[in-house]
Amino acid sequence: MARAPGEIEALIALMARLPGLGPRSARRAVLHLLKKRTLVMEPLAQAMARVAQTARDCRVCGNISDDDLCPICADPARGRGVICVVEDVSDLWALERAGGFSGRYHVLGGTLSALDSVGPEALRIPDLVDRIAGESVSEVILALNATVEGQTTAHYIAEALAPSGVSVSTLGRGVPMGGELDYLDDGTIAAALAARRQI
Amino acid sequence: MARAPGEIEALIALMARLPGLGPRSARRAVLHLLKKRTLVMEPLAQAMARVAQTARDCRVCGNISDDDLCPICADPARGRGVICVVEDVSDLWALERAGGFSGRYHVLGGTLSALDSVGPEALRIPDLVDRIAGESVSEVILALNATVEGQTTAHYIAEALAPSGVSVSTLGRGVPMGGELDYLDDGTIAAALAARRQI
Repeated sequence: MARAPGEIEALIALMARLPGLGPRSARRAVLHLLKKRTLVMEPLAQAMARVAQTARDCRVCGNISDDDLCPICADPARGRGVICVVEDVSDLWALERAGGFSGRYHVLGGTLSALDSVGPEALRIPDLVDRIAGESVSEVILALNATVEGQTTAHYIAEALAPSGVSVSTLGRGVPMGGELDYLDDGTIAAALAARRQI
Repeated sequence: MARAPGEIEALIALMARLPGLGPRSARRAVLHLLKKRTLVMEPLAQAMARVAQTARDCRVCGNISDDDLCPICADPARGRGVICVVEDVSDLWALERAGGFSGRYHVLGGTLSALDSVGPEALRIPDLVDRIAGESVSEVILALNATVEGQTTAHYIAEALAPSGVSVSTLGRGVPMGGELDYLDDGTIAAALAARRQI
């Protein structure tokens, strides 16, 4: 039973692999593209091909870049004294959107996981230790997710960095902006109590 | 404040225009693509560019095709006596997935809308009238959505086809497969009652 022509079905199958899109929404997205072939589809295909060719990992921090060094590592205005360690490039982007951090980053590319056999080498943790030894770094901020995996990884990194004598910190815990106590989980409320500050 | 490199931001902006994706999920999708550059991103960019170049509207029925005639119109096994009129290519795909129709299609490309000034010419309705006159068509099935716009369009087409003497039908109304009466709207239940059949 004929559906769409083969190439279109192949495109739908590829689109359906994207996170947030299933077979049905991929079909809808492709149909939308087909209706706007010159306006959206061709520019999108070109942009994607261009990025696929130029994008690479920054050799220092692991951020995604179109150069050997990412814009943050290449920026002389960014402080060299503080390194913020994040799990993923999306976390780096989130921190940059929030503003307020003017140091540099180190992207792990995931968290330690015995189940998925992700060890320290796969996470660029040895690279981080080397960076601390080589550069004049005074502080490492572990901006990892507040999940079990994130915190396990944070503990491992803190231990690995202990011999270097660098100051290691993690993100503050507490009530998020706009947060209502009634809707917060117990762990957050307990953490906020423990992290109470005098006003 | 630097976020992602410019080309990546441009790609995210293009992806965010797809239905079902917003700025946030487009960012996630692009990040996923960036992690699988050779495995997913390049094939996707190539498939998209290829489809953008080859896809066109079938000159007879308006289905999307990579040829002048779509596979259905080109198939000699598909009956020429019955034409099924649909709003959109996605409806045609849905009918083909369901199976059970072996005739040919006519894709309107939308519904009549005074507000959006969509008239009969924009919907290929004159083409349909010409097709009925030219080919030996005995029946036209109006498989339009059961919405106000779909039914308005169906009424208009039925009137436009009246002089040709062709038999015009619409899809049956009633309880959908697996439907529970308690959860059905009043309109559907009333329609199912009106369309009751002796067993």
